[in-house]
Amino acid sequence: MTGRKPGAERLSLNQWTTRRWSVPEAVEGCRRHGIEAIGLWREPVAEHGLSATAELVRDAGLRVSSLCRGGFLTGDSWLRDNRRAVDEAAELGAACLVLVVGGLPGVVPGEPLSGFSRDLADARTRVAEALDALVPYAEERGVRLALEPLHPMYCADRAVLSTLKQALDLASPYPADRVGVVVDTFHIWWDPEALGQIARAGAEGRIASYQVCDQMHPLPADVLLGRAMMGDGVIDFAPLTAAVAAAGYDGDIEVEIFNADVWSADPDEVLATMKQRFADLIVPSLA
Amino acid sequence: MTGRKPGAERLSLNQWTTRRWSVPEAVEGCRRHGIEAIGLWREPVAEHGLSATAELVRDAGLRVSSLCRGGFLTGDSWLRDNRRAVDEAAELGAACLVLVVGGLPGVVPGEPLSGFSRDLADARTRVAEALDALVPYAEERGVRLALEPLHPMYCADRAVLSTLKQALDLASPYPADRVGVVVDTFHIWWDPEALGQIARAGAEGRIASYQVCDQMHPLPADVLLGRAMMGDGVIDFAPLTAAVAAAGYDGDIEVEIFNADVWSADPDEVLATMKQRFADLIVPSLA
Repeated sequence: MTGRKPGAERLSLNQWTTRRWSVPEAVEGCRRHGIEAIGLWREPVAEHGLSATAELVRDAGLRVSSLCRGGFLTGDSWLRDNRRAVDEAAELGAACLVLVVGGLPGVVPGEPLSGFSRDLADARTRVAEALDALVPYAEERGVRLALEPLHPMYCADRAVLSTLKQALDLASPYPADRVGVVVDTFHIWWDPEALGQIARAGAEGRIASYQVCDQMHPLPADVLLGRAMMGDGVIDFAPLTAAVAAAGYDGDIEVEIFNADVWSADPDEVLATMKQRFADLIVPSLA
Repeated sequence: MTGRKPGAERLSLNQWTTRRWSVPEAVEGCRRHGIEAIGLWREPVAEHGLSATAELVRDAGLRVSSLCRGGFLTGDSWLRDNRRAVDEAAELGAACLVLVVGGLPGVVPGEPLSGFSRDLADARTRVAEALDALVPYAEERGVRLALEPLHPMYCADRAVLSTLKQALDLASPYPADRVGVVVDTFHIWWDPEALGQIARAGAEGRIASYQVCDQMHPLPADVLLGRAMMGDGVIDFAPLTAAVAAAGYDGDIEVEIFNADVWSADPDEVLATMKQRFADLIVPSLA
């Protein structure tokens, strides 16, 4: 901890940022760079094995800031898959299970339109009903669900949950320690209500995860990969981070970047840059 | 008017939909297809000449549903340009001058980031101040300003005005017949507050323009061109159009499509398709 400012220890590597690393490589990378927490993804966890991963992160002393991701509640067969995701989050001791709720039924990311529904209101109702069915199962297993509003450009194909306000409204019937929300700078920075809703989320005790990454400009051809290292895009992290801190959130802060250049870079260099940018652009606003 | 359902006469061709047509070609196209209104753009109007355009549309008996566009209020030298846009709207007898307010100062659409501001709150304050400076000038010339919230994916480079609620709040200090808002399905369809804010806009008498076009899926490499012919994308026009009608808007309805395939198609075919889709997907919800 020598020389680190208070707050630096809250940095968490979301595993997708160093996507080509396996679970053991990511865990070892965190150790090498003095990163104390990790956000895991289900696919690489399954590859390494669930129990083996749980043991590995436990032995490494890493906190699991989240498991990504359950959700896609607007399609079929979501219940079985999400129960499995809850079980995995429980075994990993994850602080929360992130839910990306899904888009319009039948709209597939990257695929041409075919046999889909345009009924957005109905899709949003489906999400509420599915959440209602999932909460008791998660509650029994002690897993906190974290609703993640996604940027409106993903409304059609990934998440009909588009604002923090909408996520908080959706969470409101449930205890805050059972259903929280994800505050992700990339998804909400544009929102005129962002600061007010962050304050509300804090007052309601619902900030389950704070994720930071920048928005590229111009956006790349595949908008899913429009996320960037903090400082490389258009987002001002100071007001958002200060609002999250003022709202009382004191958990880990994940860096989750989907970006072709970041993915092709040497992961050790990515971690070094990430630590520096976190220290420069996030930590000062946590005080 | 034979055989046309009530409402069909409200279709307006936004000139950018048939971008390769000059002003005379677009006016002649409207005549050929029995379209009674046109949304003009400043660049082609300047090319044909302002007075010549005014005379041409008047002689053709076309209503000018809007002039696109003023705005970009977050940069420099916006005042002179917007006063000129107001003058043009007045001479053309346009129902309103559409304002696209501009993005973060220094962020240029399609260009790499360089020498820009990340201060979103300040950019929004600049917009409010610029609007305040522009309203009296527009008022003197009898031109109604129409604030257009743009989809949040354009927040950085084109419009820090991102929701209908934000636009209505921004308009609220001014009389409704001086400052209205544009309701554009493409920009607001994802918004959980859209229907409520459309009702509010109607109650406040602020719907200055209703524009319809669809959202492509997947989005194209240049997201600016993500607009599509009604029926070719993910948007359900019925609830939005019914809300606009219920809110009391009875003006023209523009079809404004930025889309590479539409632009490369035969404009006469585009107009034929546009009329049919308007009749099928918009008109039934106007009753």
